[in-house]
Amino acid sequence: MSEQPEKAAAYPSPALTAAILIIGNEILSGRTKDSNTSFIASRLGELGIKVREVRVVPDVKDRIIAALNTLRSDYTYVFTTGGIGPTHDDITADCVAAAFNVPLELHDDAKAMLLAHYGGDPATLTEGRLRMARIPQGSWLIPNPASGAPGFQIGNVFVMAGVPTIMQAMFDFLPDRLGRGEKLLVNTVTCNLGESVLALGMEKLQTRYAEIEIGSYPSFKPGVAAALSLVLRGTDADLLAAATIDLMALIKDCGGDAQLLTADVPV
Amino acid sequence: MSEQPEKAAAYPSPALTAAILIIGNEILSGRTKDSNTSFIASRLGELGIKVREVRVVPDVKDRIIAALNTLRSDYTYVFTTGGIGPTHDDITADCVAAAFNVPLELHDDAKAMLLAHYGGDPATLTEGRLRMARIPQGSWLIPNPASGAPGFQIGNVFVMAGVPTIMQAMFDFLPDRLGRGEKLLVNTVTCNLGESVLALGMEKLQTRYAEIEIGSYPSFKPGVAAALSLVLRGTDADLLAAATIDLMALIKDCGGDAQLLTADVPV
Repeated sequence: MSEQPEKAAAYPSPALTAAILIIGNEILSGRTKDSNTSFIASRLGELGIKVREVRVVPDVKDRIIAALNTLRSDYTYVFTTGGIGPTHDDITADCVAAAFNVPLELHDDAKAMLLAHYGGDPATLTEGRLRMARIPQGSWLIPNPASGAPGFQIGNVFVMAGVPTIMQAMFDFLPDRLGRGEKLLVNTVTCNLGESVLALGMEKLQTRYAEIEIGSYPSFKPGVAAALSLVLRGTDADLLAAATIDLMALIKDCGGDAQLLTADVPV
Repeated sequence: MSEQPEKAAAYPSPALTAAILIIGNEILSGRTKDSNTSFIASRLGELGIKVREVRVVPDVKDRIIAALNTLRSDYTYVFTTGGIGPTHDDITADCVAAAFNVPLELHDDAKAMLLAHYGGDPATLTEGRLRMARIPQGSWLIPNPASGAPGFQIGNVFVMAGVPTIMQAMFDFLPDRLGRGEKLLVNTVTCNLGESVLALGMEKLQTRYAEIEIGSYPSFKPGVAAALSLVLRGTDADLLAAATIDLMALIKDCGGDAQLLTADVPV
């Protein structure tokens, strides 16, 4: 059994990145809408960790291993969801072990967690259930208060369940294991103008404030007046406030009404 | 201006695959939940085209170009959403042109579509709006009944808007341009047993019916009894019916109640 990984450093690092790997035919078939990405990305954002890529791959061994090896070399952290249950289509642990080139072993603590979850009688640990205690050598378990079978961390990869409520319960154990990046501050401005009216002015604004990421997100709902959300993101509060004030002035100059919808930084 | 691409062949091809490339910081930040994947995947499924990979990348030129070139070489079709509006963060058309190594040109028909959408007065075609008529050379336009600015097809890549209602309106123009694969038939069986009870029996069933993909999807909702959905997919109706009957018998043998929820294939 491996030792617990070191606690994350307390000082912020500006360059912490992450990828999310969603494993499962049910997302690719359209049967299930992925909601894990937005949950994980939001929680990581609070820690100053930026999600830079998401991939969804089918329950196919070679495809999972290849994606995992690419992502774990390209980003600080990789978070996987899906494929850690007891059935034949749950092959994530096998694939992670293969990607790290380590054996998959029956893990005593994982077995104990399952035993506790199923009421303490060893007879309840059927072959199917014991499959969920097979963990790549060198992993640190991620407890699963929702349904017993743990996830695990190996290296910079965090392996979690696909069912959103279970994944979310697991995720609560991760922040202690993760570093802290510079927190991204976000201001959101809404207005009643079309994107194209503001486009040139915003481009100039983006050039002037290169360190602030300015995103433009129109919404179209039948029967509702078109609305435009402008989202400003950055780590420097003063710069963010200045860019937000300039953007609101631009909207006014173009004849629109601007509203500061949410603000990490008061302007 | 390019000629229209040939109509898709009428006979089914079993090997039609697709990837979806979601372009946009707003998905990676967790601000917006992607719903385009499930829509596109479901519609392609009806045509017998299997989505085999999804990637989400940020509004960063090199990252979009690299993902596009990988996916268009690995799959029959690539569908992109996002980044085709008039603002500075809309760089998809530039990236597609770069990936295909063709110039980005002001497209007469795209300009005409914008003019019609904005009421016919050429003065309304501001520099910002004209940005949306810049189309990679050799593309075929995809009309946009919702908001005017067209998407486009170049080679095996279909470029659409990110806003779901607009993307969906564009998608209606695509089936004529796509081939037809063997339609995947789906039976869904629900039961009141835990996954681990059925795991070994299902594994044997999966081995016996190698051509039928059997997926197991538990749901956990606080306060609601756990339910298990078993999804069987295949192109051979007789095999699918036989596997479904055997699975329902397995559930009964394990002491559970099985319900055939939806049946493409009566069993």
